[in-house]
Amino acid sequence: MSKQVAVILSGCGVQDGSEIYETTLTLLRLDQLGIGYRCFAPDIDQSDVIDHRSGEAVEERRSVLVESARLARGEISPLAELEADEFDAVILPGGFGAAKNLSNFAEAGADMVIHEGLVDVLGEFHEDRKPIGLMCIAPVMVPRLLGPGIAVTIGHDPGVAGAISSMGGLHRSCGVEDIVVDFEHRVVTTPAYMIATRLGEAATGIFKLVDRIDELMDL
Amino acid sequence: MSKQVAVILSGCGVQDGSEIYETTLTLLRLDQLGIGYRCFAPDIDQSDVIDHRSGEAVEERRSVLVESARLARGEISPLAELEADEFDAVILPGGFGAAKNLSNFAEAGADMVIHEGLVDVLGEFHEDRKPIGLMCIAPVMVPRLLGPGIAVTIGHDPGVAGAISSMGGLHRSCGVEDIVVDFEHRVVTTPAYMIATRLGEAATGIFKLVDRIDELMDL
Repeated sequence: MSKQVAVILSGCGVQDGSEIYETTLTLLRLDQLGIGYRCFAPDIDQSDVIDHRSGEAVEERRSVLVESARLARGEISPLAELEADEFDAVILPGGFGAAKNLSNFAEAGADMVIHEGLVDVLGEFHEDRKPIGLMCIAPVMVPRLLGPGIAVTIGHDPGVAGAISSMGGLHRSCGVEDIVVDFEHRVVTTPAYMIATRLGEAATGIFKLVDRIDELMDL
Repeated sequence: MSKQVAVILSGCGVQDGSEIYETTLTLLRLDQLGIGYRCFAPDIDQSDVIDHRSGEAVEERRSVLVESARLARGEISPLAELEADEFDAVILPGGFGAAKNLSNFAEAGADMVIHEGLVDVLGEFHEDRKPIGLMCIAPVMVPRLLGPGIAVTIGHDPGVAGAISSMGGLHRSCGVEDIVVDFEHRVVTTPAYMIATRLGEAATGIFKLVDRIDELMDL
């Protein structure tokens, strides 16, 4: 039986959900490595809906789970059904959904609150020493999700890096085509579209992240 | 100056718009080859909105252009602004948006009507002998868009292949990891998610399509 990875989504679109390219590239690399995956998303409303052409918020309600289903071609389950026992690792793509739907970092900064179901299930993966990958803005949740003293990257944004530090995390600057690995805590992060200007360079960092998660699953 | 390719989208999500993975993989390959691209979509309402979790239509209105902007991280223009003069080739990813928004093939079969702006601009690319790539269900539009006698594939669905024949097109069966090239008419097609069961195999066919479009731009 192949390795199995859970991928946690937060909507469909960089401004109010999961970053589409980051998610697709994660799933592509998992499939290329022969790793099975399943997508999950919380069954809650999005905190907002952004018109991705104008960049403005619109008066609409959309479900994080239903919109995430677009990214998973319908093959998705509610986050509440994710059992850490059934997976060997977990990966969170980025996009503002991580800072608006999975947490309220976009609004509250270091005072953020994280979706309770996410805290619980990520805690189980972490306790079981299963590798955890996060990209783009998602690593900002690590100090609150997994505890202090874990090295992560969100690229080199001083404000976000400062918030990570103030929550007890360790931030390391990192280029878009590279990853930061905390071997002790088995956490892998890459900046992706925090700093990517081209799809190819985001792919390089994301493929490295997935490859490292694959290796860590064997250790 | 690098080659420039126009990518025409039809929404964001396989059931009512552009197939997300097909679009992302197209853009990734273009970027990896150093080819510039710009996304376009018609400024019209989607023919329907499908809940991608349940598969059911919902009572909602969404704009093809605004939803396509999710797939393009906001970098998109109305199809009416696409000037064939400014591009060396054009690619249409699939998804039901090609059969519901760009055309009404899903409803009308071989009696379909295609969005007028698409007919006009694709006609210009074709007259200028610029390569045209289409994937998944999008090749069904070729006989009406570009004329009869052009070889295309949508995989091996007998109903859709029959419709292509009845409109004067030539259908060739093709595996998911392969492409059909009509050298005379400079049209390249691949089945993608008409038959793909895994992301990696869709990527193989789509990368081949983009590579062949790249080669044809030099000829």
